[in-house]
Amino acid sequence: MKRLSPEAYIEGILSGDRMVFSRALTLVESSLISDQKLAAQVLEAIMPHTGNSIRVGITGVPGVGKSTFIDAFGTYLTESGKKLAVLAIDPSSEKTKGSILGDKTRMDRLSRDENAFIRPSPTGGSLGGVTRKTREMVLLCEAFGFDVIIIETVGVGQSETAVHSMVDFFLLLMLSGAGDELQGIKKGIMEMANGLVINKADGDNLQRAILARAEYAGALKLFPASESGWQPQVGICSALHGTGIAEVWEMISNYLDLTKGNGWFDRKRSGQNLRWFHETIRHLLEQQFFSNPEVKQRLTEFEINVKTGKIAPTVAAQKILEGIL
Amino acid sequence: MKRLSPEAYIEGILSGDRMVFSRALTLVESSLISDQKLAAQVLEAIMPHTGNSIRVGITGVPGVGKSTFIDAFGTYLTESGKKLAVLAIDPSSEKTKGSILGDKTRMDRLSRDENAFIRPSPTGGSLGGVTRKTREMVLLCEAFGFDVIIIETVGVGQSETAVHSMVDFFLLLMLSGAGDELQGIKKGIMEMANGLVINKADGDNLQRAILARAEYAGALKLFPASESGWQPQVGICSALHGTGIAEVWEMISNYLDLTKGNGWFDRKRSGQNLRWFHETIRHLLEQQFFSNPEVKQRLTEFEINVKTGKIAPTVAAQKILEGIL
Repeated sequence: MKRLSPEAYIEGILSGDRMVFSRALTLVESSLISDQKLAAQVLEAIMPHTGNSIRVGITGVPGVGKSTFIDAFGTYLTESGKKLAVLAIDPSSEKTKGSILGDKTRMDRLSRDENAFIRPSPTGGSLGGVTRKTREMVLLCEAFGFDVIIIETVGVGQSETAVHSMVDFFLLLMLSGAGDELQGIKKGIMEMANGLVINKADGDNLQRAILARAEYAGALKLFPASESGWQPQVGICSALHGTGIAEVWEMISNYLDLTKGNGWFDRKRSGQNLRWFHETIRHLLEQQFFSNPEVKQRLTEFEINVKTGKIAPTVAAQKILEGIL
Repeated sequence: MKRLSPEAYIEGILSGDRMVFSRALTLVESSLISDQKLAAQVLEAIMPHTGNSIRVGITGVPGVGKSTFIDAFGTYLTESGKKLAVLAIDPSSEKTKGSILGDKTRMDRLSRDENAFIRPSPTGGSLGGVTRKTREMVLLCEAFGFDVIIIETVGVGQSETAVHSMVDFFLLLMLSGAGDELQGIKKGIMEMANGLVINKADGDNLQRAILARAEYAGALKLFPASESGWQPQVGICSALHGTGIAEVWEMISNYLDLTKGNGWFDRKRSGQNLRWFHETIRHLLEQQFFSNPEVKQRLTEFEINVKTGKIAPTVAAQKILEGIL
């Protein structure tokens, strides 16, 4: 696809041109070196306009009603005058051709809402690749002027940790009635959550949801106190009937009041930026090293003797680095 | 501690000097750059004398009787004329001051057996560090002339994967009566195992162990066929009474016959060496990069602007690499 000039991307994003914005996201998603360089120029220019959104991560196992919840919650936000972007992290999406694309059609109201923007997960191969691209997409969304950015993940594997590493508030959606085991939620994920919301609290389910809320609230109190000074909250809602949705935003607002007041909000973002910086250095360092033609040549030579045990792998590694750096 | 000359280490190891051998292990365990260089010289010289042992990994949750099993199994091996080394991978050993040191006193016969050698886990901090050191210790053990090397790990966390990456045969010790859940054994670990042995198959437990063997054998058949052509076997034993121990060695021997015959044994070792090589390159690359004074200086400068969101972490990472490589 034809690329624009850096200036065209920058101006388009900052002036709110949705078409250019969408093409900038595609640029950031690309794995081509030339695209990455172009993307870096764009990112550098827009940085003064980033950082002003609230970044919310949402996870929960399939069946918990994530799409319905995001549709209801997102609509509540846009009706309150906020502009909302919904991104996703789903490393499996390359194979399944984007499960969130299916979600998009299930986010019925939001997908027709002109103050909302829904983008499927980048198809970057590894989780690391998808994570890097999504982080840059968050910056583009902020420069474009979105007030809230929801990053959704699929509730399995390591993608929750990735989402947690890039959001201000991490929300875990659950169901009542199913045990934690059944919901496939590991203790580690509960510990990452700043808030739990039990969905489908309607009809016959309502009483069970109220009981479950008390149980989870009790369980969360047993976790070690967070550095943020925030005690994770438990809410109930019915995304289908729109009840309890305003309370979720209230929970997030309370968190923001507390953590912006005590400095935790900024410290958390600083730490996230720093880790992202170091991860990217490591990634680029390896990428540049292993794609160096001289390294490739020497690797092939050494590998023969490493495989057959003629040279110790550690010794071979030392020699290959001596020869290059 | 005073170091020897490279020649003194090499000669001592190859001539079977136990004192020098032990000091060479200490050298390999050291994190000092000067020691690592000296160790590399020693490793380079001894490589032609390595690779001839059988490397056996043993895991199982605490309480399964690992020490008692290794004591019985190891004594069986030395009585058959074999020389045996027992190493361990336990990343927690720095804090607990080496749980295997306690084990050593529990490996009652083996610790007094002059054809056996027991060494606690290196205290390397990270699992990666411990793993690298243990791999080099295996090479030293082989050059010294050990026929069988047992690498023990504590059945929790990622250390099983590390042990699996450096052994020919991976043995999982289990108990009957306790469910898999109770034993904390994850499916992934069962899939790594080339053999399962149900320990404490004695007295009232014997019938249950026989039943459990049939169950596990059935479960293992459901796993996808291994590239090696080997179908994982299930045995029962009583380390306490010495029953079923010879059969464990028979299981391993059958595995060796099959995989040495069909070429899998060599292919597996080649693959292990290659992965070890690449891991070490990545490790050294990062180590050298981040310890470079110019990099350190530039890192500090960039980190201020990265933390506050003035520069995008990916852009800063690109700039820092441009400036150096």
